[in-house]
Amino acid sequence: MSPTPFARSGGRAPDQLRPIRITRHYTMHAEGAVLIEFGNTRVLCTASVEEKVPPHKRGSGEGWVTAEYGMLPRATHTRSDREAARGKQSGRTQEIQRLIGRSLRAVFDLRLLGERTIQIDCDVIQADGGTRTAAITGAWVAAQDAVATLLAAGKIAASPITGAVAAVSVGIVQCQPLLDLEYVEDVACDTDMNVVMTMDQAGVGHYVEVQGTAEGAAFSRSEMDQLLTLAEKGIAELVLLQQKSLRN
Amino acid sequence: MSPTPFARSGGRAPDQLRPIRITRHYTMHAEGAVLIEFGNTRVLCTASVEEKVPPHKRGSGEGWVTAEYGMLPRATHTRSDREAARGKQSGRTQEIQRLIGRSLRAVFDLRLLGERTIQIDCDVIQADGGTRTAAITGAWVAAQDAVATLLAAGKIAASPITGAVAAVSVGIVQCQPLLDLEYVEDVACDTDMNVVMTMDQAGVGHYVEVQGTAEGAAFSRSEMDQLLTLAEKGIAELVLLQQKSLRN
Amino acid sequence: MSPTPFARSGGRAPDQLRPIRITRHYTMHAEGAVLIEFGNTRVLCTASVEEKVPPHKRGSGEGWVTAEYGMLPRATHTRSDREAARGKQSGRTQEIQRLIGRSLRAVFDLRLLGERTIQIDCDVIQADGGTRTAAITGAWVAAQDAVATLLAAGKIAASPITGAVAAVSVGIVQCQPLLDLEYVEDVACDTDMNVVMTMDQAGVGHYVEVQGTAEGAAFSRSEMDQLLTLAEKGIAELVLLQQKSLRN
Amino acid sequence: MSPTPFARSGGRAPDQLRPIRITRHYTMHAEGAVLIEFGNTRVLCTASVEEKVPPHKRGSGEGWVTAEYGMLPRATHTRSDREAARGKQSGRTQEIQRLIGRSLRAVFDLRLLGERTIQIDCDVIQADGGTRTAAITGAWVAAQDAVATLLAAGKIAASPITGAVAAVSVGIVQCQPLLDLEYVEDVACDTDMNVVMTMDQAGVGHYVEVQGTAEGAAFSRSEMDQLLTLAEKGIAELVLLQQKSLRN
Amino acid sequence: MSPTPFARSGGRAPDQLRPIRITRHYTMHAEGAVLIEFGNTRVLCTASVEEKVPPHKRGSGEGWVTAEYGMLPRATHTRSDREAARGKQSGRTQEIQRLIGRSLRAVFDLRLLGERTIQIDCDVIQADGGTRTAAITGAWVAAQDAVATLLAAGKIAASPITGAVAAVSVGIVQCQPLLDLEYVEDVACDTDMNVVMTMDQAGVGHYVEVQGTAEGAAFSRSEMDQLLTLAEKGIAELVLLQQKSLRN
Amino acid sequence: MSPTPFARSGGRAPDQLRPIRITRHYTMHAEGAVLIEFGNTRVLCTASVEEKVPPHKRGSGEGWVTAEYGMLPRATHTRSDREAARGKQSGRTQEIQRLIGRSLRAVFDLRLLGERTIQIDCDVIQADGGTRTAAITGAWVAAQDAVATLLAAGKIAASPITGAVAAVSVGIVQCQPLLDLEYVEDVACDTDMNVVMTMDQAGVGHYVEVQGTAEGAAFSRSEMDQLLTLAEKGIAELVLLQQKSLRN
Repeated sequence: MSPTPFARSGGRAPDQLRPIRITRHYTMHAEGAVLIEFGNTRVLCTASVEEKVPPHKRGSGEGWVTAEYGMLPRATHTRSDREAARGKQSGRTQEIQRLIGRSLRAVFDLRLLGERTIQIDCDVIQADGGTRTAAITGAWVAAQDAVATLLAAGKIAASPITGAVAAVSVGIVQCQPLLDLEYVEDVACDTDMNVVMTMDQAGVGHYVEVQGTAEGAAFSRSEMDQLLTLAEKGIAELVLLQQKSLRN
Repeated sequence: MSPTPFARSGGRAPDQLRPIRITRHYTMHAEGAVLIEFGNTRVLCTASVEEKVPPHKRGSGEGWVTAEYGMLPRATHTRSDREAARGKQSGRTQEIQRLIGRSLRAVFDLRLLGERTIQIDCDVIQADGGTRTAAITGAWVAAQDAVATLLAAGKIAASPITGAVAAVSVGIVQCQPLLDLEYVEDVACDTDMNVVMTMDQAGVGHYVEVQGTAEGAAFSRSEMDQLLTLAEKGIAELVLLQQKSLRN
Repeated sequence: MSPTPFARSGGRAPDQLRPIRITRHYTMHAEGAVLIEFGNTRVLCTASVEEKVPPHKRGSGEGWVTAEYGMLPRATHTRSDREAARGKQSGRTQEIQRLIGRSLRAVFDLRLLGERTIQIDCDVIQADGGTRTAAITGAWVAAQDAVATLLAAGKIAASPITGAVAAVSVGIVQCQPLLDLEYVEDVACDTDMNVVMTMDQAGVGHYVEVQGTAEGAAFSRSEMDQLLTLAEKGIAELVLLQQKSLRN
Repeated sequence: MSPTPFARSGGRAPDQLRPIRITRHYTMHAEGAVLIEFGNTRVLCTASVEEKVPPHKRGSGEGWVTAEYGMLPRATHTRSDREAARGKQSGRTQEIQRLIGRSLRAVFDLRLLGERTIQIDCDVIQADGGTRTAAITGAWVAAQDAVATLLAAGKIAASPITGAVAAVSVGIVQCQPLLDLEYVEDVACDTDMNVVMTMDQAGVGHYVEVQGTAEGAAFSRSEMDQLLTLAEKGIAELVLLQQKSLRN
Repeated sequence: MSPTPFARSGGRAPDQLRPIRITRHYTMHAEGAVLIEFGNTRVLCTASVEEKVPPHKRGSGEGWVTAEYGMLPRATHTRSDREAARGKQSGRTQEIQRLIGRSLRAVFDLRLLGERTIQIDCDVIQADGGTRTAAITGAWVAAQDAVATLLAAGKIAASPITGAVAAVSVGIVQCQPLLDLEYVEDVACDTDMNVVMTMDQAGVGHYVEVQGTAEGAAFSRSEMDQLLTLAEKGIAELVLLQQKSLRN
Repeated sequence: MSPTPFARSGGRAPDQLRPIRITRHYTMHAEGAVLIEFGNTRVLCTASVEEKVPPHKRGSGEGWVTAEYGMLPRATHTRSDREAARGKQSGRTQEIQRLIGRSLRAVFDLRLLGERTIQIDCDVIQADGGTRTAAITGAWVAAQDAVATLLAAGKIAASPITGAVAAVSVGIVQCQPLLDLEYVEDVACDTDMNVVMTMDQAGVGHYVEVQGTAEGAAFSRSEMDQLLTLAEKGIAELVLLQQKSLRN
């Protein structure tokens, strides 16, 4: 339908990720502290080890992994209210932090963690689309660093992390499926989908979460198929970048 | 893999909906008031017309459709805290009410509604799995009744509702894809997906929302395909039942 | 003063109750689950047994009975805000739920209940005046059903319920004392009184709560006497209907 | 039944009020500022004139009278939590402040007040039973002083106060009806009733509010009659003391 | 610069305190209950002994001293909102109560107190400037009375209070350093400083807290020196008045 | 008293600041966006221009400058609760943000700003003592950048900033006065003072805020004098660094 494809910033191809940077040990106190950048989107992901579990896990011998998400007031184009000042987290914030927590738990064997909690905090320093997918991707690296401190301290004998997990957004803008939407694309898109996948060593992915929303027109099964294929490609690349950052 | 398929209550087939009942005019004050039952799940969906719009729509000439969701404390097997007494809505409640609102807006032409709001309230009287999908399906019928009162009063000239929307849950239990999960199936399932679709008069569906979550093992592309097919079948049936209830 | 008496809907006599319906086992999860209808007023009363007591009863050997009250947003003529969304219960809601709790405790021997709580939830599905009196009357029936499950399970040896309790509103409209006010009467009345009484097997009533408020002109001692007499007549009838519903 | 009557502190007779003191101009900023003492119960009642009305009165030409109630944390025998620190007012506080507001409005012609608010604040400095009845009785005097400032300033032409209102508690302790309960009597009583009455110049009283609660055994019609008689006697005396304080 | 010095109310000298009154046993329930007046500023300071400590002191063998601060709504010239009704304490309230707590703890040996808490409540009955300094000065006297009850009851063997602490405000108005500002001076001042000092028996003071704020122009080192000298003079006088009140 | 002076990390002299870095344009959306580092303490200070003022300034022709402060949960050694999740800001947070706002306003001519707000947000990325003093020092630079955008856009004709303001902490550790405390020094210190000063072009400083607190022993006048001298030295250096950063 659209003879001229949507022009992405920097001449990015429709199936191309933005430049991804993963900086470990970004702050000094947390067991894991990763700054992840998807282009101009920058999220600080910390993983804190706490030697306690929430009530529903007490006495179970199992641990817990949970996440909180926040955005600095001026991470966005116009300033948004500080949630601490308003006295409550928005529905959007709660959705995102629940999603991050579920995504991480999908690759955790909580019995191997023992009765302790890995608390993930994802704070958006600068937003340009895709903050939740960057958060999940960075949180996994921070969690690896936190687990490494537990292993090094002899507190656990084996890593509770069973595999890699990463996330990316995909969407349809002017009939064109695009990978890893930045803000102007997100605003323009008809369909917006966040995909979270595990990836085994053979490069085979499985879905942990798929959240697709028609912002404008509802989307067809064939469009969904294209988006899922695009997402899988992006996640495979992200997982390689995660692995590479851990080797540094 | 599983030679004996999972036995559903009442001998229900894997691709079979629970008995669906839609009772219009269930209460007397609301412009639309529908009790919808998916088996033992019962949700009261009311649609209220308010002659005002939220700030972001003032002066736009457009209306708004929004939703709130609640559960009576003893709708569930063990009593859950009353959110009004706790002083805040849970993250789960907020996710669901945002989903209902987006789903309804997907089939609304807000310009035709004029500067007024249709406020949907979905209150779960009894819960047995699938409360959010029942809520969306019932809310659409309630919205039709509310729109009918506006048309009858001459406040609007044409219906702002552009098509049908309904929702159903699907999931994989013991390797078996199942349609319309009840509570015990929901607890047992590895993958849980809520699908919201529009359906045109030719019976062709389009996705409004797809929310899939791996509760246990992550799921493959082929499993996802099976679930999407199953959901589309269920939603086509639900849309027929919606239409039928409107003719009574 | 008023030669033509106030005309009640349906030709109801001044000292006549609205049609009362009591439906037990209205929902499936709660130990007691009663839908009570005073005309168009419909309240779902559930009684939940919880094997714990609030702090002030711990270690006392005694149980507790408490109540919460809520109104669905569109139970009323114009939609009222959802208290869970506003983040707090109104003063009116708190007054009513405290009243229901005290009324039920007046007929409970908390020692015979043992260290457990009967949690009453009264949720108004449809409001047309008298929601609090319907709630008390229905809650007593729900409490009986909850106690029956405890007796049947052998958890208690004797019923802790020492007698019947029911409630009705009375008021003066255009100088005419009326029993069981519906909404239009409640709005029009000068004096509004809610009376809660126990009733022994000889039909002798005692007051548990009397709450009279002059909405317009203050009322005289003789008017108060007429109202108390009218209330006692209504409560005697309600107690018979409670007993009858328990025999079904 | 009880051969030896309940002995009251200081040899007070069953139908005798505690020593009542009414100190006007107790603080310097408020338009009306009254310290009222019922024995050891001390409540500071201020009446503030605000040149605005709440939303439901805007443009009506009518004013409003409303009240707030609070208790200093150590007004009581053991310290109670500060409501400002807990972040919400208790149900009891809200009940009381609603009662004070309704009681004052019963003797106000809101049209004569014009579009302004008289805001009553009743703060308990020391509690020994009967804080809400002392508050109502003192608030009326403070309201008189506030009205006097409006008259003196020429802001209103005639007083909007249509008559006197006062309140007292009565109760049955060990089968003995008592007037104006102090704390130890309140704790011991089977029945506790707060009565608010207007009193015209002929000494004829009318009820504004009657709130009776059986704390122990439910009470009979004959006991209610005795309590109402006792309350009327006490209120007649309080109204004389109010009048006397205004002449000083 | 200013040839005519700022004229203070009542002809007060620049380095003169307002009339100070300290009334012990002002209310009957608290272990310490002091009404302190700095001119028209009146603060009720109670000290309550609670046989428990906050979590961070449990099992430490040490006690705790903490404070809360409040202002009656009409303590001020125009009514301020009731913090309990607004549902939160203002930043100003929190700052003040933290200051009072720190000031008192500066003269407490918490080990000698044992595992119990002295809870200070400072409630402003009437405000005319200097409420926080009056509160600290009065709270110390109330704490002495509370400690005396502990000593009398044999609960502690020696007083945990290691010395006197008192507080005063100083400021610069029209280039004139002034001691103990009243409200009109506070509003007019360029610099406002609250000083809290201990005072040993030789009359040598040490600072516990110094909080200086430039309201208008920033202030010089030499102005600061003058203010500190003035404050020390005032605090020495206040400490003598505290001692005198304890001898009565 | 202490023959061996307290050894500071990195061999820092008692009167030496930590390495200070000021990075402008740290994020891309805000009008001013400065990362300031005092050693390991890192605070992101953004200044946002909003074309509206709070109610107390509406119609005044004047603008407003205000600040909010936050700390990322894992900015600290052990994770602290997220204030947005707890639903309220701590007393400490409120004190600090009020201090930052007052400090900035001390060097703003609000009439020259026009009816708009400069909203400062100071978010601590990593904490190692002195977060509030770093925040004030960085916020001033961010405010300069925000003002520059207003000047460049022709919205204001002259800068409303009347001079420089910066802040530093000083304290006494083991009898040794120290400049710019890091965390371990802050914990160990007897006295902790935060000083905010303006500095004119002649290098003459004036106090905007002085907040000194005795953490252990109260401090003498002579100690105070040493601390004030030390603070003035540090602030003079900080102001030079601010100026230098603006020239880059």
